[in-house]
Amino acid sequence: MALSPLAPSEFPAIPNVQGVQLAVHASGMRYSGRDDLCLVILSAGSIVGGAFTQSLCPSAPVDWCKKVIKGGSARTLLCNAGNANAFTGKAGQEVVESSAISLAGLIDVNPEDVFLASTGVIGEPFPPSDLVEHLPELVGKLQEADQDNWLAAANAIRTTDTFPKGSFAKINGTGAVVAGIAKGSGMIAPNMATMLAFIFTDISADHSLLQSATEIAVNQSFNCITVDSDTSTSDTVLTFATGKTNVNASDYPDEFQDALNTVMLDLAQQIVRDGEGATKFVEIVVTGAENDTAAKEIGKAIGNSPLVKTAIAAEDANWGRIVMAVGKAGQLADRDRLKIWIGDELVAEGGMQSEHYEEAKAAKHLLAPEIVIKVDVGVGEGSSSIWTCDLTHGYIDINAGYRS
Amino acid sequence: MALSPLAPSEFPAIPNVQGVQLAVHASGMRYSGRDDLCLVILSAGSIVGGAFTQSLCPSAPVDWCKKVIKGGSARTLLCNAGNANAFTGKAGQEVVESSAISLAGLIDVNPEDVFLASTGVIGEPFPPSDLVEHLPELVGKLQEADQDNWLAAANAIRTTDTFPKGSFAKINGTGAVVAGIAKGSGMIAPNMATMLAFIFTDISADHSLLQSATEIAVNQSFNCITVDSDTSTSDTVLTFATGKTNVNASDYPDEFQDALNTVMLDLAQQIVRDGEGATKFVEIVVTGAENDTAAKEIGKAIGNSPLVKTAIAAEDANWGRIVMAVGKAGQLADRDRLKIWIGDELVAEGGMQSEHYEEAKAAKHLLAPEIVIKVDVGVGEGSSSIWTCDLTHGYIDINAGYRS
Repeated sequence: MALSPLAPSEFPAIPNVQGVQLAVHASGMRYSGRDDLCLVILSAGSIVGGAFTQSLCPSAPVDWCKKVIKGGSARTLLCNAGNANAFTGKAGQEVVESSAISLAGLIDVNPEDVFLASTGVIGEPFPPSDLVEHLPELVGKLQEADQDNWLAAANAIRTTDTFPKGSFAKINGTGAVVAGIAKGSGMIAPNMATMLAFIFTDISADHSLLQSATEIAVNQSFNCITVDSDTSTSDTVLTFATGKTNVNASDYPDEFQDALNTVMLDLAQQIVRDGEGATKFVEIVVTGAENDTAAKEIGKAIGNSPLVKTAIAAEDANWGRIVMAVGKAGQLADRDRLKIWIGDELVAEGGMQSEHYEEAKAAKHLLAPEIVIKVDVGVGEGSSSIWTCDLTHGYIDINAGYRS
Repeated sequence: MALSPLAPSEFPAIPNVQGVQLAVHASGMRYSGRDDLCLVILSAGSIVGGAFTQSLCPSAPVDWCKKVIKGGSARTLLCNAGNANAFTGKAGQEVVESSAISLAGLIDVNPEDVFLASTGVIGEPFPPSDLVEHLPELVGKLQEADQDNWLAAANAIRTTDTFPKGSFAKINGTGAVVAGIAKGSGMIAPNMATMLAFIFTDISADHSLLQSATEIAVNQSFNCITVDSDTSTSDTVLTFATGKTNVNASDYPDEFQDALNTVMLDLAQQIVRDGEGATKFVEIVVTGAENDTAAKEIGKAIGNSPLVKTAIAAEDANWGRIVMAVGKAGQLADRDRLKIWIGDELVAEGGMQSEHYEEAKAAKHLLAPEIVIKVDVGVGEGSSSIWTCDLTHGYIDINAGYRS
């Protein structure tokens, strides 16, 4: 798979997060010649918060995580790429249980402190030995997290991703850090995606603060992106706090939230930049809606419209398709007060094309790899941003050919 | 544009509908060398029922029709292809009013009995003269409706359609007939589409019966199709009854409804067969849902999923994507009772791949141009069918190239 033209120039220099150890391994269960297992060990006393797919057909690991996260504590995370262990029935549950128990035994923790994530094909039988037999070797490879390890971990969780995704931010005034890795490039829609994101911090936080901060950050990041409107069975975001810095997040709530928001938004936007077949990174800013939720729905209607996405791929300022998408969103909008901008160019207002509109200016903006579409629907104060990509032959090539 | 591989072998031999006259004309307003205006005159006393786009940014002709249909009477229908007269502001309203008044004057009827429909580009200024100046010539060409005229009319309303769409059915026991033409191939989603459909019958019907019969028929036809999940600003279905047979629909309510249902379903399915870039005609049958509405939502989630549609294009029995789509539909479903069939082959049951599943059988079914996917979600008695097509490079070619 060729590297996305929207990929960042390099993987960030993620620092060590105290209390985090990483290991990767090539199991060969689906891919050959690459790591496909990622193990993270967290120091004793680590706390977890999370958010999961809203799919009614969740994968076995999602079922497992939803159950064990209630305890609020975590000691390890195991992720495999290649088989989603979704719609795999009783056998899938057994994979989850046997790998949690095996791993817990190897590192001497409770099975309830083991978190699991799988990504890949749905509905493919998953023999437990595929995971379990590699665990001793994986555990033997554990090292302190450093820049190279983070990169290796981000690589090991990829499926159709064309680049590894990582991000970090310092928590102002604390010496603590938030770092994260993620994967995802198709089956991506608001309300989570075929998307895994694992965030680590060495700040100290209790479960309820960590859970609430995770939900806030997810809502302004992973729930604001869409590649193809499809929602995976496996979406998982987990935030782990080791507390190793002895700084408490409750003393720095805004600083911690800012850092978490920054890392999740960066990872979410990287997922869009790796959207299957993407050649344009598109920000859709909706203002003037009845409320923020309505604005988000309108943004999603635009961001999910195949006709808008193909027009952007064609660098065609066909703004009538944006009007169409606003009209179908089912949210309050005033056709005759609606304003639409492509870049900084006002293209429509007063229920028609703007008198001052110069198509050449809009067309010039569309030549760039980063596109901004602004829409004011003229009925209130609600606003939201959505990030998406264009729809190209590349998407068809990937999804009409590759079973992932 | 190459003819869709799913096109019917020929345009049907639609008979004369008493009280209906047709004319077509090439205005040259957008297309050259083809008819783009279609005029229908209905005998005095004709009655109309209709259904319109649910877009909150409807076109000027839709606004007009929604207003004048309240009277229940109709004498003429004028349709142009090439400019949708949508998001055209005051000027667009003036086009509608001036063409209704001009046409009413030419044929000596009330402007409130003039119905208008436009299809084509959204947001492009539409000088009133583009329509009005052609009306005298168009009126001069009126003829009784016969097979050739119906074909010419169906051709004149096309935009990206690759074949003209027509259908008819006899109303059992009455000697009356229902005939219809339609256009549409992209921006097609349940709850209407970039889709125009005009139905004519020489049975006699009052407005409330005609309106109710139209809504019933639309709900089981045009509202059950999807090409790309996008919803047009211009969708219009109008049913006109001339009453010329002196047979009253209230004496044959079931027979009339059956004929209307048949014609609308045939036209709706023809639109799917002309889906932009379509190579597969796909029927999605959902059973076992909480109720019929839930079944329809699940069918739409499957039918709108880019990942399901690309898998079908690839003739790949990647049924995990169907599980994903069921899971994201937001309707009650039981993962562990869910059953999925591709053609007659049961692929999944009991929360996993069926023990008896033979992928070769599912793969063989997917080679055909007509695909059936059945899903039982295991929670109730609700059922629905949805018709859609696959998602191919052809869709991208058409929509990333052509401004329509």
